[in-house]
Amino acid sequence: MAQWVFSFGDGWADGDAAMQQLLGGKGANLAEMSALGLPVPPGFTVTTEVCAHYYSNNKTYPNELRDQVSAALAKIEAAIGASFGDATDPLLISVRSGGRASMPGMMDTVLNLGLNDETVAGLAARSGDERFAYDSYRRFIQIYSDVVLGVDHYQFEELLEIFKEGKKVELDAELEAEDLKRLVAAYKEAVRAEIGRDFPQDPTEQLWGAVDAVFGSWMNQRAITYRRMHNIPPSWGTAINVQTMVFGNMGDDCATGVAFTRNPSTGENNFYGEFLVNAQGEDVVAGNRTPQPLTVANKAVNNTSLPAMEEVMPHVFGQLEEVGKRLETHYCDMQDIEFTVEKGRLYILQTRSGKRTTNAAMRIAVEMANSGLITRDDALLQIEPSTLDQLLHPHLDPKAKRNVIATGLPASPGAVSGRVVFTADDAERSAHKDEKVVLVRKETSPEDIHGMHAAQGILTTRGGMTSHAAVVARGMGRPCVSGAGRIQVDQEAESFFINDVTIARGDWITIDGSTGEVMLGQVPTVEPALSRDFATLMAWADERRRLGVRANAETPEDTRTARRFGAEGIGLCRTEHMFFEIDRIVAMREMILADEEKARRAALAKILPMQRTDFEELFRIMQGLPVTIRLLDPPLHEFLPQTNTELVELAESLGTKMKLVRNRALQLREANPMLGHRGYRLAISYPEIPEMQARAIFEAACNVSKELGQTVIPELMIPLAATKIEIEILKEVIDRVAGEVRAETGVGLEYSVGTMIELPRAALRAGEIAETANFLNFGTNDLTQTTFGISRDDVGSFLGNYQELGVIEADPLVSLNPEGVGELITQGSQRGRATRPDLKVGICGEHGGDPLSITFCETIGLDYVSCSPYRVPIARLAAAQAAIRLAKCRAGV
Amino acid sequence: MAQWVFSFGDGWADGDAAMQQLLGGKGANLAEMSALGLPVPPGFTVTTEVCAHYYSNNKTYPNELRDQVSAALAKIEAAIGASFGDATDPLLISVRSGGRASMPGMMDTVLNLGLNDETVAGLAARSGDERFAYDSYRRFIQIYSDVVLGVDHYQFEELLEIFKEGKKVELDAELEAEDLKRLVAAYKEAVRAEIGRDFPQDPTEQLWGAVDAVFGSWMNQRAITYRRMHNIPPSWGTAINVQTMVFGNMGDDCATGVAFTRNPSTGENNFYGEFLVNAQGEDVVAGNRTPQPLTVANKAVNNTSLPAMEEVMPHVFGQLEEVGKRLETHYCDMQDIEFTVEKGRLYILQTRSGKRTTNAAMRIAVEMANSGLITRDDALLQIEPSTLDQLLHPHLDPKAKRNVIATGLPASPGAVSGRVVFTADDAERSAHKDEKVVLVRKETSPEDIHGMHAAQGILTTRGGMTSHAAVVARGMGRPCVSGAGRIQVDQEAESFFINDVTIARGDWITIDGSTGEVMLGQVPTVEPALSRDFATLMAWADERRRLGVRANAETPEDTRTARRFGAEGIGLCRTEHMFFEIDRIVAMREMILADEEKARRAALAKILPMQRTDFEELFRIMQGLPVTIRLLDPPLHEFLPQTNTELVELAESLGTKMKLVRNRALQLREANPMLGHRGYRLAISYPEIPEMQARAIFEAACNVSKELGQTVIPELMIPLAATKIEIEILKEVIDRVAGEVRAETGVGLEYSVGTMIELPRAALRAGEIAETANFLNFGTNDLTQTTFGISRDDVGSFLGNYQELGVIEADPLVSLNPEGVGELITQGSQRGRATRPDLKVGICGEHGGDPLSITFCETIGLDYVSCSPYRVPIARLAAAQAAIRLAKCRAGV
Repeated sequence: MAQWVFSFGDGWADGDAAMQQLLGGKGANLAEMSALGLPVPPGFTVTTEVCAHYYSNNKTYPNELRDQVSAALAKIEAAIGASFGDATDPLLISVRSGGRASMPGMMDTVLNLGLNDETVAGLAARSGDERFAYDSYRRFIQIYSDVVLGVDHYQFEELLEIFKEGKKVELDAELEAEDLKRLVAAYKEAVRAEIGRDFPQDPTEQLWGAVDAVFGSWMNQRAITYRRMHNIPPSWGTAINVQTMVFGNMGDDCATGVAFTRNPSTGENNFYGEFLVNAQGEDVVAGNRTPQPLTVANKAVNNTSLPAMEEVMPHVFGQLEEVGKRLETHYCDMQDIEFTVEKGRLYILQTRSGKRTTNAAMRIAVEMANSGLITRDDALLQIEPSTLDQLLHPHLDPKAKRNVIATGLPASPGAVSGRVVFTADDAERSAHKDEKVVLVRKETSPEDIHGMHAAQGILTTRGGMTSHAAVVARGMGRPCVSGAGRIQVDQEAESFFINDVTIARGDWITIDGSTGEVMLGQVPTVEPALSRDFATLMAWADERRRLGVRANAETPEDTRTARRFGAEGIGLCRTEHMFFEIDRIVAMREMILADEEKARRAALAKILPMQRTDFEELFRIMQGLPVTIRLLDPPLHEFLPQTNTELVELAESLGTKMKLVRNRALQLREANPMLGHRGYRLAISYPEIPEMQARAIFEAACNVSKELGQTVIPELMIPLAATKIEIEILKEVIDRVAGEVRAETGVGLEYSVGTMIELPRAALRAGEIAETANFLNFGTNDLTQTTFGISRDDVGSFLGNYQELGVIEADPLVSLNPEGVGELITQGSQRGRATRPDLKVGICGEHGGDPLSITFCETIGLDYVSCSPYRVPIARLAAAQAAIRLAKCRAGV
Repeated sequence: MAQWVFSFGDGWADGDAAMQQLLGGKGANLAEMSALGLPVPPGFTVTTEVCAHYYSNNKTYPNELRDQVSAALAKIEAAIGASFGDATDPLLISVRSGGRASMPGMMDTVLNLGLNDETVAGLAARSGDERFAYDSYRRFIQIYSDVVLGVDHYQFEELLEIFKEGKKVELDAELEAEDLKRLVAAYKEAVRAEIGRDFPQDPTEQLWGAVDAVFGSWMNQRAITYRRMHNIPPSWGTAINVQTMVFGNMGDDCATGVAFTRNPSTGENNFYGEFLVNAQGEDVVAGNRTPQPLTVANKAVNNTSLPAMEEVMPHVFGQLEEVGKRLETHYCDMQDIEFTVEKGRLYILQTRSGKRTTNAAMRIAVEMANSGLITRDDALLQIEPSTLDQLLHPHLDPKAKRNVIATGLPASPGAVSGRVVFTADDAERSAHKDEKVVLVRKETSPEDIHGMHAAQGILTTRGGMTSHAAVVARGMGRPCVSGAGRIQVDQEAESFFINDVTIARGDWITIDGSTGEVMLGQVPTVEPALSRDFATLMAWADERRRLGVRANAETPEDTRTARRFGAEGIGLCRTEHMFFEIDRIVAMREMILADEEKARRAALAKILPMQRTDFEELFRIMQGLPVTIRLLDPPLHEFLPQTNTELVELAESLGTKMKLVRNRALQLREANPMLGHRGYRLAISYPEIPEMQARAIFEAACNVSKELGQTVIPELMIPLAATKIEIEILKEVIDRVAGEVRAETGVGLEYSVGTMIELPRAALRAGEIAETANFLNFGTNDLTQTTFGISRDDVGSFLGNYQELGVIEADPLVSLNPEGVGELITQGSQRGRATRPDLKVGICGEHGGDPLSITFCETIGLDYVSCSPYRVPIARLAAAQAAIRLAKCRAGV
């Protein structure tokens, strides 16, 4: 019989930490902690397989599930000595989701389950606090009705307001037990009016209702959006954790909080966290109250004078710190621990690897490796490569003037300027128009995710370092300042003010998520100084990786950035970008409008010296590192102006008739330019273009070789090969030009000629193509477009829908599709190498900087990846991780 | 040592008919005939391998070639008893090209080689005719200078005119020996003036000059164009045949002609041909003199009263007829024989399978098979499937009024109307504008090929049934009337006249190539009645083929045509074609402009009954044969009007604001519609569309099932699959609708759901796709576009250039590219069948009617091809041929 339910409790557990896939992250860790003997409230986990069964069997459960749940409940009752539904000593439970990957706040949770008109009295007796008991019941009715019964929570909030008005009080806390009893009655009445039957009194019915709702919430819109953004497959499903309730809100000897074993923002090896006295766990995360620090040292970090837990409950704090040390050593990673103190007794509700800033992650990894807690390989594996992105982008210029108007918490590092917007939708709309915005909110909620993603940065006026805004922003790599409490937001008027300054929608501000500062206007930024830990990790990564990492760059600035970030060469220099500068585009257009080879050659002769200078500069910067230059790619119409006015101007400037210019523009127009007269096709139609480019490259190589006293060996390639013959034809042209330049300069020019592979046919025919080409460079952007039959420019019309429906999990233009495009790359590189065993094979395109794609490239044994300069460190780390994982996998680990 | 030269002569030969690849068609047959003991003038063949060597070694020859040629010449001298360059009895030779495939008139030929100032006297002595000898020398100088030395032949023609004027004569024949001697001197002077040296006197130098020129002519523009049109690979190369000259122009006991063993126009089993007394071979083909019939029976066929060879030289005719019978029996095919009679002695210069009209080919094949000369398989192999095309197209309506203004020879069958043009370039220009034209010429020459290809039909005023125009037109399947001698063409005025009727450029005429009639204006045409031989062959083909043949059709008319031509089902019914009719396009646009599902459904509900009627009609016509229906494919913008004016009208007619209409049109616009929001993508975005279509199909199937009393089983498919999940999602929709229709109608509906495969990714993932899809239909048009990265609409910009350069041999959108697209189809069908062994796999698209592509489909074991209705018979025959060839190949034959 399949085991659908796994129990855990004080000192024992059915599962362990390795069973994340089955029990979810939370469930596996609850089991592990229970087995370690940590104070975990007993409970059980309903597995992710039940979720999968639920969705593939028309939302029904396996037959054995009810019995297994009953048995697990009985186990809890035995452990706690209380009974589910018992009127005198009722067992109360929480029902929470917990998937393989954390999806904070995305799914539903039900607390205090088991309360009803009878058990509420038992709770009152046990806690000795009738007010607390009815307040818990009231909260339970509200959450349960909202989550399970579909009764909008605003109804309950309205009833609460009416009650408070009737009593002429302002705070919930001012309501007395009797008031809450009447409020409970009113809540129940509201539920009956809405759903036509009584609020369920049977705890078992309550439990199954909650289980249904939590599994159901796996497919709610928020969760779907979150998964799409984080590449979590819908097929993973969620587990459900049912656990004995403990209460941090039974009085001043109660508390709830979150602890990190190291500082998640800086990585400093100091216990760090926040807590609230007499509160439930949700209060900390929701950010409605400003939490207190755990340690005295934390006070300075958080800019707060509130008393620390270390001061308020020193004994329990000591226990907590001890648990933290034990968990960090046990898991070999910094832990994020949720705890509750019920009447002076510590309970651990959850532990997981703590989210952290990238700088913190690097510091933690390096320090843990240096202290011997983990290996260097494990240190490398601890850093999610894509998070390096946030380090590599500009910070505020320290010399720039700053008009700081407020300071909040440094919730997610990085500095950014943007126009102020106040709603997530507004942020998204602006992003579509390529406008930079900062989303300003009192606090954020899961409904704001799309806006946070669209915004450059996030500013909130409430909530701490572990508030929703802070957690999500760090995950996304968006700069965020949270809890800037002196700022007042007027959501309706779409403005915020602080002292006498008013900032309206559309005004520019700058936030620095590393310092918590909020500034007026746009403050200039500078390149980041990279930490010593970064350099250490990169050096470890370089030792460990097999894949070469090159950069896609053509401007001197990008080329310098690429070198600075450790690129081992240029993998893709797109020469057409060099044609768009104003002095060149004129000659380019002259060439396009010429109807004879002679006139085209005359125009190209004007471009030659400029191209040569371009290449000299690149070769100089790269100092002998390999440089792969792609000859002209796009169809010629891309170089012509689009509007009639511009065409008239062009005709005038070239002294040509408008009619001729327009006719040529019409003649060049293409129905599907992506599949058009490009690359080889263009070079074969107008061989004078590759001739000019080859000459510029070779002359530059000769000049710089002399200058450097070392041979520059350029690598030439042309895009969009379909057949071997195309490459042969152009290799002849290139070889001829090389011979001419050799004869003219007397320099012993060396070079290689390869090809891009962007068409399925070329990938399949790589065996014969490698007879002519010295190297293959898979242009994965175009190869994805042709293999998938999608157009980068048009895919937006259905891609979102496809991801929501699970047709494709990741955007194939961002993360290499391994089954389709990947198979062609695999076949292409195998066939190419069968012909020419020393064939160099790499990829360029967006995928070259995508960690998943890099893992794929390592697995199939490519030689290098090439990516944008800012992604080079990401690629270096991802390549090292891929090598480590592949070695582990081959060793059977 | 490699044998580069193969000798042949009276009764002996180094080669044989099987060596076509090495010796070319002509050389192999000369060897075969020599070995049979037929009267072939002795000679030798320089192999096609020499041509390949020549082009891959910078136009140089193998070292051994000179010696082998000398030895072969010596062999001829021994056989003939004459010597090359001998002043008293000189050996004269012809040098002709001869490739694996016939390329009539495309390449250069040199006759009378060996003549010089000395040997001309020997020829005079031997022939006893000084005038003849100098005329031969004059002709040799002209041809040789033109072909080898690059001296334009107009120079010589001008000199000849001057001489005739000086002598005040009109005909060449009126010049006497002395005149011709002086003319020869003038010719030689002209050559020296032009090339700066004397006309070569050394026969060996002459020979090598001619060999260079003939090999060189393999790459002349005419030859390249011809090869491209006939899919002859440039790599094949040509052989060269050097052969003893025999003279049909030494007097009235001399003649030259062409004989067919059966009538090439009707296929009747009657000796047929034409000849000229006292003429050289080129005179017959060139069409300068109207030739005489071979037999008395031919007189009636050719509408001539000129005396027949049977009457003029009965003895030689008897020998010729005997040779014809022997060759036909030997080769098991109708032969086209070139002969010359020199002083009463018959020489056979060439035999080859005779070109014939398709009707003739069918009659010959059926009669030969029925007589036991060949098998039915061989009969099927004798018909080039693509030639069936000309049979299947309309003939003149017998009831239509015809204003016949002239009658010529019925040179190539079929009737056609077109505007008159007078130059090949004009014909080509008109074709680009989709104008139908008839090309009118005194006679055609190889320079006119492109214009003949571009024209609907050809009319000439000179030349016979074997003239250039007639041969080429039959090969192309263009209707042609030749030798309409009463018509006078005024090339300069661009008009022709007959009696008092003048027809100017642009006027409409109609020609009937089956009767030879030329008519004024446009005469209506009717569908052709297909011959009994056609039916016989088709029946044989159907017995022999394994591949199913279906048609691509959606209109009732096309569907009926498809059935009439033997389609076994509809393989592709493109439903979007049904949306363009005026009553539907309005509802379609309404749907596109709706911004809510509800409004879209309302618009679709209007289309539903019309679609249902469409499908009912198809099912009725197909009477239970399978019908595969493709749901909506194109992106929605294709249904919106393009111009502003039309958009305004649309807005008005729908009562919508122009701005909304324009915004929607802009929103739908795509950069690369080929890779756009189509097929599955569209159906998944707007599931109400496939729902409506599925309902229309199912309701129609239920209705017609009841009506016919037999179950109609529709096959549904959607285009542009990339993933399995797309198919799953839409299969769910289709299955749900089927369930609804079943419930509503109570009919036990059966259907299958398959998918089109048009993207490389889908082909690669066919294994998992076949888990969901019941059948795979490779949409080879789009699969070629994506695999090759070409766009049907744009490929014209470089395709011609690519074919000229040999980058690709055939247009991959016409003939399936076996290495690229073919490999994907092979992999796709193998992977699909590995999952589902009974998976039906077919192709649709242009390739389904292309014989080469059909051969490919047979080789990889697909189940069916689907093509346009008119191509169904072609596909049936091609499929039979493919099966026969595959069986032969597997049997090692």
